[in-house]
Amino acid sequence: MITYPKGFRASGITAGLKESGKADLALVVNDGPLDVAAGVFTTNRIVAWPVVWTRDVVSDGKMRAVVLNSGNANVATPGGMAVTEATAEQVAKVLSIVASEVGVCSTGVIGTKLSAEPLVAGVDVAAGALSTSGGHDAARAIMTTDTRPKEATFEAGGYRIGGMAKGAGMIAPGMATMLCVITTDAVIDAETAQEALASSSDKTFNRIDVDGCMSTNDTVLLLASGASGVTPDAQDFADGVRRVCQDLARQMIGDAEGASHDIAVRVTNAASEVGALAVARAIAQSNLFKCAIFGNDPNWGRIISAAGTVPESVAPFEPADLAVLINGIAVCENGVDTGRRDEVDMQSDRLVDIELRLGSGTESATVLTNDLTYDYVTENSAYTT
Amino acid sequence: MITYPKGFRASGITAGLKESGKADLALVVNDGPLDVAAGVFTTNRIVAWPVVWTRDVVSDGKMRAVVLNSGNANVATPGGMAVTEATAEQVAKVLSIVASEVGVCSTGVIGTKLSAEPLVAGVDVAAGALSTSGGHDAARAIMTTDTRPKEATFEAGGYRIGGMAKGAGMIAPGMATMLCVITTDAVIDAETAQEALASSSDKTFNRIDVDGCMSTNDTVLLLASGASGVTPDAQDFADGVRRVCQDLARQMIGDAEGASHDIAVRVTNAASEVGALAVARAIAQSNLFKCAIFGNDPNWGRIISAAGTVPESVAPFEPADLAVLINGIAVCENGVDTGRRDEVDMQSDRLVDIELRLGSGTESATVLTNDLTYDYVTENSAYTT
Repeated sequence: MITYPKGFRASGITAGLKESGKADLALVVNDGPLDVAAGVFTTNRIVAWPVVWTRDVVSDGKMRAVVLNSGNANVATPGGMAVTEATAEQVAKVLSIVASEVGVCSTGVIGTKLSAEPLVAGVDVAAGALSTSGGHDAARAIMTTDTRPKEATFEAGGYRIGGMAKGAGMIAPGMATMLCVITTDAVIDAETAQEALASSSDKTFNRIDVDGCMSTNDTVLLLASGASGVTPDAQDFADGVRRVCQDLARQMIGDAEGASHDIAVRVTNAASEVGALAVARAIAQSNLFKCAIFGNDPNWGRIISAAGTVPESVAPFEPADLAVLINGIAVCENGVDTGRRDEVDMQSDRLVDIELRLGSGTESATVLTNDLTYDYVTENSAYTT
Repeated sequence: MITYPKGFRASGITAGLKESGKADLALVVNDGPLDVAAGVFTTNRIVAWPVVWTRDVVSDGKMRAVVLNSGNANVATPGGMAVTEATAEQVAKVLSIVASEVGVCSTGVIGTKLSAEPLVAGVDVAAGALSTSGGHDAARAIMTTDTRPKEATFEAGGYRIGGMAKGAGMIAPGMATMLCVITTDAVIDAETAQEALASSSDKTFNRIDVDGCMSTNDTVLLLASGASGVTPDAQDFADGVRRVCQDLARQMIGDAEGASHDIAVRVTNAASEVGALAVARAIAQSNLFKCAIFGNDPNWGRIISAAGTVPESVAPFEPADLAVLINGIAVCENGVDTGRRDEVDMQSDRLVDIELRLGSGTESATVLTNDLTYDYVTENSAYTT
């Protein structure tokens, strides 16, 4: 919850962007004394106007407020930048700050025209609703097809970290977008904040992979108020941020629409973490593998053949050294079948644990993903026209 | 048809590897006078035993016969190399040649034990059935879940080229494997054959992408008998091989199981062909895009966002220059919506034509793919245990 640390107010209200009439606009305000901020953004070359705006806002390591809307992603929209600017300016006006201190995030359909009016009017309502217990409302207002809000908290040595996020992947009708705001009352500088956020995102959000599709809007922000008066050790603080990110990432995978299984793809005994991660990603992005898990089929051939697409220079291993364990059952050893497929049970738990041992070192990496199901196809086809 | 050129005999028989009792073993013999051969193989690091064997056989540019089985891929099988060797040795014995002149190809399930007996006995039957009109039977015997055999022919200036293939992708219950044998009675040397086959495969088979999954068994062979006595121009010959490969590639996409649309992803106005191809592949591998086409949804946002994942160093373009045409309707121009989505008709034709104009040059590339459907999920999950 983003109002868990001291120094933050938030709200979530209905601005009228969603046909459903559900909450669609969230406002988060950092009341200080610090206004330190950090950001991590999509690396897609096609980015939404709010991403262009907010990257610029955070470039000086400062931000006073963030306004987030669901219902429209404001990407590939004619005049979309003016809408983003108007929204930021309205926030600045009601909070008596300047627009260049206001981040903007949007999620929803792509390429559908968005007018500034409901956003500007919504900002006034949201400002009036701001409260130091408004974190839950904000978390609800950024949901698209998420079935539940996603929040996390962390506390250590007198300071707190809170977070909210909306889901990654499988989100009809537009792109799969991840938005996340993390707040803290720790006393940190912008550099520490950016390092903690970047390293945490890399180990958490960048290791969940629902469908290999990168959004145009993905944004993760960290705001520090310093209101606790506590200056944490940089590494301890980064660990705290990582815990909050990991918690939110797991909630996203657990709420990915259309999925019937969460899958942890663990690649172990690798020569390097980079190599282990490349192999884990290749497996997590294999449609054949993801369909097999949906069918509760311990089809390990699809696991090793996906691994085999990773260049040897990235992840050295010998095919004859490979072992595959599915939910702890060794179905493949020394690269060949062990005859134990029938012992694998994937039906009694939503979580499926895949371990691929490369036999070439001591490093490892895990990627979380989901199975590929009928409902995924439905979410992303039948309901979109 | 592989017996369309002079100098070839073929057969297709039932060896008993398939529970259905359908034909599952094909034999192709080059009666010369030449025994020139070329081969292109999967680049997956996990390869089937027959791939290891046949890569070695073709390394000297010569091959006298090829035996192909469906029903078992012979990959990750203990003792699988001995089975491949025994099969090749039996072919050598009945044809009075040596085993190192015999190629072996397998397709079917992965990791299921394969014994040599049915293959060895099957080779005897296949040898007795060899005929100069046996191409159709051979094409049928290599089918797995293909619904129809895939054959192509080409003739020019007194020489002929013939080909057969089995499908790519979406093939339950094992991996998606492509096998292809091309025959010619042209007089060519091994180097010309290899160049023609490699360049043709690169422009055809390597530009169809059903699900981004690379098989452990993919094999494309070219056998030249020289029986026409005609020595073609190397470029003309390569063009002929490419036409045969293109014809077979289109048949594969048209028969990909579970698909309801064939999709031609054309990336045009690119700075380089390599860049155009990278962008086309990124789009063709986007599950979100493929689901949208299944839903007959002209969701061009998913097309440009997939394009945006390709590094600028590979394919330079400005987001504001992009145009997207779906079945000829410009749904996006200058990077924004044109308001013409409703004009797009994807329901009256199985083929959907996507054109993404990068606005950065004159090069182009096309990748053929399919939509992502319920039936794809079914083929690759429910029927596999």
